[in-house]
Amino acid sequence: MRISFIGSGNVAHHLAHYLSKSNEVIQICSRSLENAQILANKVNAKAISEITSLEEVDLLIIAVNDDQIETLSKAIELKNSIIVHTSGTKSIDLLKGHKAYGLLYPLQTFTKDRVVDFAQIPVFVEGSNQDVLSSLSKIAEINFPNVHHIDFEQRQKLHVGAVMVNNFVNHLIAQTDQFLEQNAMDMAYLKPLIQETIAKIDGFKAKDIQTGPAIRRDQQTINRHLDLIEDNSMKSIYEVMTKCIQEFTS
Amino acid sequence: MRISFIGSGNVAHHLAHYLSKSNEVIQICSRSLENAQILANKVNAKAISEITSLEEVDLLIIAVNDDQIETLSKAIELKNSIIVHTSGTKSIDLLKGHKAYGLLYPLQTFTKDRVVDFAQIPVFVEGSNQDVLSSLSKIAEINFPNVHHIDFEQRQKLHVGAVMVNNFVNHLIAQTDQFLEQNAMDMAYLKPLIQETIAKIDGFKAKDIQTGPAIRRDQQTINRHLDLIEDNSMKSIYEVMTKCIQEFTS
Repeated sequence: MRISFIGSGNVAHHLAHYLSKSNEVIQICSRSLENAQILANKVNAKAISEITSLEEVDLLIIAVNDDQIETLSKAIELKNSIIVHTSGTKSIDLLKGHKAYGLLYPLQTFTKDRVVDFAQIPVFVEGSNQDVLSSLSKIAEINFPNVHHIDFEQRQKLHVGAVMVNNFVNHLIAQTDQFLEQNAMDMAYLKPLIQETIAKIDGFKAKDIQTGPAIRRDQQTINRHLDLIEDNSMKSIYEVMTKCIQEFTS
Repeated sequence: MRISFIGSGNVAHHLAHYLSKSNEVIQICSRSLENAQILANKVNAKAISEITSLEEVDLLIIAVNDDQIETLSKAIELKNSIIVHTSGTKSIDLLKGHKAYGLLYPLQTFTKDRVVDFAQIPVFVEGSNQDVLSSLSKIAEINFPNVHHIDFEQRQKLHVGAVMVNNFVNHLIAQTDQFLEQNAMDMAYLKPLIQETIAKIDGFKAKDIQTGPAIRRDQQTINRHLDLIEDNSMKSIYEVMTKCIQEFTS
């Protein structure tokens, strides 16, 4: 299959790299020709910086920041390519005007220099009509083992979940890291605990294994903890999470 | 070494099981003789339900709920055993009156029917005086590869961190699980994301890899997400975490 990319960030990087193994990646288009070239070299494609230089392909993947999708889409002149974006939050209607468009959304957090195992990642597709959905599903299923259809409403809700378990979990760790650092301790002390916390979700419902002072309603420990936290943001997190744990289980 | 336990809950269970491999576990004491017997059978010890039946040992480990430690300690009549509790939050002064007392705090979340790898777990010790600390450290270091001294103030702060990355992370997952369930979706969609979120902490500082609508200050997506969340607890979590991510990085 012939696939091109608009974008050279993390999502484009990981998708292009993975898809290049069993497809032909034709062009990498990025405002920065230099960035396009770095990725193009890795996947044996041609780097371009002008959207008007795009060639017809089987699949054109727009993997850019959400707020650039619509403008880029309007500049694309291809007639016979299926065009998709990869956003968790944006409607495929941003691609309106093209003959065949849709979504290819790999639900994962991508970081440069970290290998991603696409065999584990759910990939969600949506199509501008039933034919496009059917074509896109076929393309996706050839390339990814874990493909699902999803409508826009559901995808947005799924993205809320992704924000909860990725962005917010990461922030809890960032806050804790800073708190330990300020108190001359090392995050290494907590890593086995974090890992076990997550390992458990394979065998248990999280609500069934909640522990700690909040669910025990151990107000003495809660008050002591709030005394020990100087940072106001961290204090507000502690208060809200404690309240919600108690409401969730009452 | 001769070791006995007061308590037959998760901590007692995991510690007794682990320590029985290279020590002699003498007695398991629990209010419920039946529970004591279940654990005693596993570690080849004697079950008792009366604290006055405790024999002298090298180490007596009190692994019970925080609020029972002091009462139990006062009922113990041993003269030559080192007595420790295993709490992340309570002072060793609860054990005052004994000749040699202290702390043996394995920092992990223990669940029945899940094997725990003590090689990874940091174990913190504290002693009622320098001699006791030295004896306890020796005992701990023979049995655990990852032993640290910690004072009460530091231990309480570390426990705040444990609450953040275990209790609160688990609650984020519980809330998300419920939210997806209410919207006819499955937590399985998010598991690879959760795993990658945590896997990253080995190579990156959490604050350096924060992503999402909050840090992008993408108010349109934030508002849409808040519209999609009906539950008031979950909404308050979303609002506070978003605010804190923005404050943390500004």
